[in-house]
Amino acid sequence: MPSYTAPTKDLQFVLHDVLNVTSSSIPGYDELEAEFTSAILEEAGKISSEVLAPLNVVGDTEGCRLENGVVYTPTGFKAAFEQVKEGGWPGLDMPEEYGGQGMPYVIGTAVGEMFSAANQAFTMYQGLTHGAASAILAHGSDAQKDKWLPKMVSCEWTGTMNLTEPHCGTDLGLMRTKAEPQDDGSYKISGQKIFISAGEHDMADNIIHLVLAKIPGGPEGIKGVSLFIVPKFLVDDDGNIGARNGVACGKIEEKMGIHGNSTCVMNYDEATGYLLGDAHKGMRAMFTMMNEARLGVGMQGLAQADVAYQNALEYAKDRLQGRDVTGTKNPEGPADPLIVHPDIRRSLMDQKSFAEGARAFVLWGAQMIDAAHRSKDADADGLISLLTPVIKGFLTDQGYDMTIKAQQVYGGHGYIEEWGMSQYTRDARIAMIYEGANGVQALDLVGRKLAQDGGKHVMAFFEMVKSFCKANGGLDEAYDRDFIEPLKTASKDLQSAGMYFMQNGMANPNNALSGSYDFMHMFGHVCLGLMWAKMGKAAREALDGGASDKEFYNSKLATGRYYMARQLPATSLHLKRIETGADTVMALEAANF
Amino acid sequence: MPSYTAPTKDLQFVLHDVLNVTSSSIPGYDELEAEFTSAILEEAGKISSEVLAPLNVVGDTEGCRLENGVVYTPTGFKAAFEQVKEGGWPGLDMPEEYGGQGMPYVIGTAVGEMFSAANQAFTMYQGLTHGAASAILAHGSDAQKDKWLPKMVSCEWTGTMNLTEPHCGTDLGLMRTKAEPQDDGSYKISGQKIFISAGEHDMADNIIHLVLAKIPGGPEGIKGVSLFIVPKFLVDDDGNIGARNGVACGKIEEKMGIHGNSTCVMNYDEATGYLLGDAHKGMRAMFTMMNEARLGVGMQGLAQADVAYQNALEYAKDRLQGRDVTGTKNPEGPADPLIVHPDIRRSLMDQKSFAEGARAFVLWGAQMIDAAHRSKDADADGLISLLTPVIKGFLTDQGYDMTIKAQQVYGGHGYIEEWGMSQYTRDARIAMIYEGANGVQALDLVGRKLAQDGGKHVMAFFEMVKSFCKANGGLDEAYDRDFIEPLKTASKDLQSAGMYFMQNGMANPNNALSGSYDFMHMFGHVCLGLMWAKMGKAAREALDGGASDKEFYNSKLATGRYYMARQLPATSLHLKRIETGADTVMALEAANF
Repeated sequence: MPSYTAPTKDLQFVLHDVLNVTSSSIPGYDELEAEFTSAILEEAGKISSEVLAPLNVVGDTEGCRLENGVVYTPTGFKAAFEQVKEGGWPGLDMPEEYGGQGMPYVIGTAVGEMFSAANQAFTMYQGLTHGAASAILAHGSDAQKDKWLPKMVSCEWTGTMNLTEPHCGTDLGLMRTKAEPQDDGSYKISGQKIFISAGEHDMADNIIHLVLAKIPGGPEGIKGVSLFIVPKFLVDDDGNIGARNGVACGKIEEKMGIHGNSTCVMNYDEATGYLLGDAHKGMRAMFTMMNEARLGVGMQGLAQADVAYQNALEYAKDRLQGRDVTGTKNPEGPADPLIVHPDIRRSLMDQKSFAEGARAFVLWGAQMIDAAHRSKDADADGLISLLTPVIKGFLTDQGYDMTIKAQQVYGGHGYIEEWGMSQYTRDARIAMIYEGANGVQALDLVGRKLAQDGGKHVMAFFEMVKSFCKANGGLDEAYDRDFIEPLKTASKDLQSAGMYFMQNGMANPNNALSGSYDFMHMFGHVCLGLMWAKMGKAAREALDGGASDKEFYNSKLATGRYYMARQLPATSLHLKRIETGADTVMALEAANF
Repeated sequence: MPSYTAPTKDLQFVLHDVLNVTSSSIPGYDELEAEFTSAILEEAGKISSEVLAPLNVVGDTEGCRLENGVVYTPTGFKAAFEQVKEGGWPGLDMPEEYGGQGMPYVIGTAVGEMFSAANQAFTMYQGLTHGAASAILAHGSDAQKDKWLPKMVSCEWTGTMNLTEPHCGTDLGLMRTKAEPQDDGSYKISGQKIFISAGEHDMADNIIHLVLAKIPGGPEGIKGVSLFIVPKFLVDDDGNIGARNGVACGKIEEKMGIHGNSTCVMNYDEATGYLLGDAHKGMRAMFTMMNEARLGVGMQGLAQADVAYQNALEYAKDRLQGRDVTGTKNPEGPADPLIVHPDIRRSLMDQKSFAEGARAFVLWGAQMIDAAHRSKDADADGLISLLTPVIKGFLTDQGYDMTIKAQQVYGGHGYIEEWGMSQYTRDARIAMIYEGANGVQALDLVGRKLAQDGGKHVMAFFEMVKSFCKANGGLDEAYDRDFIEPLKTASKDLQSAGMYFMQNGMANPNNALSGSYDFMHMFGHVCLGLMWAKMGKAAREALDGGASDKEFYNSKLATGRYYMARQLPATSLHLKRIETGADTVMALEAANF
């Protein structure tokens, strides 16, 4: 059975040595002293590895079951959820006025990584609630906030997001769910929603569904979509739970993974709903949460990669197979451990350099969200908006690949469910799909975000990389060669790709869209390159400053060098592909495939 | 539910337009007239799509079960197996003297692709039998051949291969299974073998296990391993089935995929076994079949990619979502089909260009095996020996990636088991692991095959590419630009990588082994590039010759151009990685990971 060790030291390194959170001017960041964050992370790490991780395989094996309209979660989930609630974890970064602890999102994200790594399916119950609560926080009236938020912040009531219908996923303009206005100002919601994570279950007293639906007579297509609060049980003005609402789980989907989460078909039959935000502006209400939700999914990619890597590493150290070609390392044993073999190393270094780079990227993204929300920093808001599809698409694609690499280290044992490595790949697979499939992320990046505000944010990104290279180049020959130069080259590739889109996308937008997926990946590599350059710098400074834990910082430098040498050059291949434009991609008529 | 259409036209194209089988001097190839092979392929295609494909999801859902020592295969498997046996398919390319049809291996491979694509788990029962029969054919005494082969060629008795033990997979020198010599010349085999595909089941009257074991007192390690025939039921000299032998299935493994195949723990308790080949030469006996077995696994990678692609293509044509940015394609409908979107095209073209290129590669490999066996062509034998790890490693890695891409086209529906796309990925995953995990293939390629016979075979490969480019360059500007030039560039990258290994591997073998995986992949790309150059040439010639089916040949050219423009340039990235050597890969001490 696999295990999970919380990467608290590494999270602390990113928060304090790389992002320097306490010297940030973002309100609330001054409280994030190293001792304080360490205490939180240690505690969250403990519950992750001791409570949530052991339930991961239980969730996978048992799954959820629907009986007479009731959904039962796997053995142990309910008790663990109680423990999470008692610890106040769901409200960690929610406002104090609704019972939260008011901490920055960056801390919620660090904790979220650990919870997700330990048990993704379990953590989704809480994650969906967080998302739904954020929507109410951003768009609800004061009365709505007062009514729904306190119980959602504590996870006494959980939340869901209802977008997809059988015939429409990405293209929500095709939606058929209807919301009929009632005399009392409420609506009657009718329709079917599918793929609703945590749609129905036995761990909360109420479930607050946020449902996209169309008010008859409104604008056609996507412009006529509104967002509604639809509780499982109606709630009176005093907060008392009343009658069952007209919403029920019709089916639990049989999925490839995340079996511990109940993915439901939800049937709405004249269910009472309350408009959240403005009529026909439902998509806007959804999209204000998208940066956060998609960053959370990108983080899941990292989380599954990290836990899979941890186990692959242990296996590679334990399993004796073959001999080191440069000389036996374990002469007393019948063979050397797998980790002596260069190709196993390559795989482990791919995984390690990804996980650590991605961790910095995700926390940096969370910091930008904090800056946007807490400091009303429009530049940070613009930059995170640009980078969100990169975080979501790149980190989940790569995160998935890393779980496959980790599984491969186990050989045949990786394919046997008993060893647990299959589950990491099957659970990680969904992150490439939900919250907008990764192809849609690439489209969002190239078709929308690049040109947003006149291209201001992408130019700011390049300027940031350039400034970093300028400020930190020329201090140390090795650092220049290993970090600064590769970053410059990769960033230049990315700029060339952007230039190609500008010059060729006007004549035919397909010249840009055919390269969108490659662009998303090359952008991701440049971001991880930047993260590694920053981590490399921080490690150097720590070593120069006489840090006692030399091995930790030297490992950072070695891992960073690996990424810069072996992974970052992928930008050149992506650029090559992009520069071939749409010609070969669009050459065939659909009928001739 | 997904479906499968046999690619008979495409197989015919490769056999006749590209490989020109009838003009080959290989004995038996003169019979392979287009009409004859078409009849075989049509018939095999029919059984694949109508009998085997519908059972694919049944096998996945039901799996195999062990009750009181009896393993039950999924509903319908037994009847389908009878139908396959009655059609004589298992013996298609086995010698006529043992009841086979004596056809070349290239035909068996073409049929094998279809069977595997339709139902990999099912086809493995027959595939393992083929492998075991080939071993007996190559190493058995006449008496052994007469006794075992006729029933194995017909699949009345099936076969298995028993290598792995709990503590040893790749490193078979650690093996503990013992073979005690008996007075009558037989042996008593005792030990435990794991991951035995088709190890026990209810579809055959007897199961003939080929088991690796050590004869006490023999050489240490891998040099003391011998191969034994161990039947489930003993067989007397007249071929009558007698007493049950001391071998039993202890457990069926719970796997990620190929649930329809019984993957067994096999316990040998003084089971009677018969030495196959020479004592202590068991590994050599196993390895003579490896080229064939590994080509078969590479073919599975292609097969799963192809069937997944077929279904993704249909979905992309059917599913209406969003609008073509260059102008609506389906004005009467609520949205355009997915296939209008450039990023969906990119994914489909990746899949299509891989499947068709891989098909040519696999059949070319099978042709080399025929040349080696039927014409005793030592050059062909050397070349296929070199290319075998490439076929196995590259095609299964890429094939798996393609099933993931196909699944992704379905969005959320791809993650739901009901749609069947998850099964293709889960089934395809095993091919990267069994018959030697792909990292071991890379090691075999770089550590052994490159230098084999003084590097003669790799030099012959480069010479072949060069001759092809010389003979076919300069005839047509577009063909030169789209096919010949990219192939030359990629082949040069591969040569540079080989050169790097020669120059730096001597000083430190890890400089070569750290790049072995990249080398395997770049070699695969060059092979597919060569295949596409050949297919492009064949398509041009057909069009110049006034072929009636212009669309087929134009599609080949368009698909080839895509591969050359978008996939083949990956060689440059692999070369870059390789040229960084072992430094960053091996920098960390195991303890500092």
